[in-house]
Amino acid sequence: MPDILHRIGIKFSSLDNVYEALTARENLSGWWTKDTQGESKVGGVLQFRFFEADGFDMKVLELDPARRVLWQVVDGPKEWIGTKISWDLKQEAESTIILFKHEGWKEPVEFMHHCSTKWALFLMSLKSLLETGKGAPYPNDFKIDGQY
Amino acid sequence: MPDILHRIGIKFSSLDNVYEALTARENLSGWWTKDTQGESKVGGVLQFRFFEADGFDMKVLELDPARRVLWQVVDGPKEWIGTKISWDLKQEAESTIILFKHEGWKEPVEFMHHCSTKWALFLMSLKSLLETGKGAPYPNDFKIDGQY
Repeated sequence: MPDILHRIGIKFSSLDNVYEALTARENLSGWWTKDTQGESKVGGVLQFRFFEADGFDMKVLELDPARRVLWQVVDGPKEWIGTKISWDLKQEAESTIILFKHEGWKEPVEFMHHCSTKWALFLMSLKSLLETGKGAPYPNDFKIDGQY
Repeated sequence: MPDILHRIGIKFSSLDNVYEALTARENLSGWWTKDTQGESKVGGVLQFRFFEADGFDMKVLELDPARRVLWQVVDGPKEWIGTKISWDLKQEAESTIILFKHEGWKEPVEFMHHCSTKWALFLMSLKSLLETGKGAPYPNDFKIDGQY
């Protein structure tokens, strides 16, 4: 099954800082979508909302401080339901590296192409939030095809 | 085998304009790398060069005007050799959509994660070149981990 893979390095950010940006609701809302609700604890569900209240509900499956976060999509677009999103962290020189994977897609549909590009830009938003204090969460996200 | 997939939409650009940005050497050098050499004809080889003359040699396998471009990597990093890069174009409303695929990776290695993110940003560079006249080709490309 095809996966979406990405890798970024965040300068001058500790593993703890990056982990916090993936787990604290007020930080998640600083790079993905301003409308982030729910509880970031194992077994809890995070709600990420976008245009017209569409969005994703993520069950938190793993929280390994400063190392790994794993979510599973429990509600959202049908192509996303059941897929898993993992964030693996490691230190390299003066940067924290994030290895990102969105796995479990059944088919490499056109929407998956779109999501792959959007994830890259949300990762850049996360990098910007941590490096400069300013991310680009929805609705201020980078648009890749005019509307989205 | 895992693939890298992306999708962008370019506003107010015709299929012909986008096709030209993927085939004319002077346009390729406006969004991927300034150091682009070679011949964009079927059977020809394009040379894309980056830091310290490292880069990719792409054999042009298909050129279907305003519809599709297909390259195969004939020299470059070992993980890239033999892989194929396809660009499929279509019109949607006032945009030209690019469906991008980099296929033939043997393993989802960390370098593949890196390349996936870089491709997204080079696609945004291509979009910017066509929409605003200014791309971000190497060495002015968006850095995703400090150095690259």
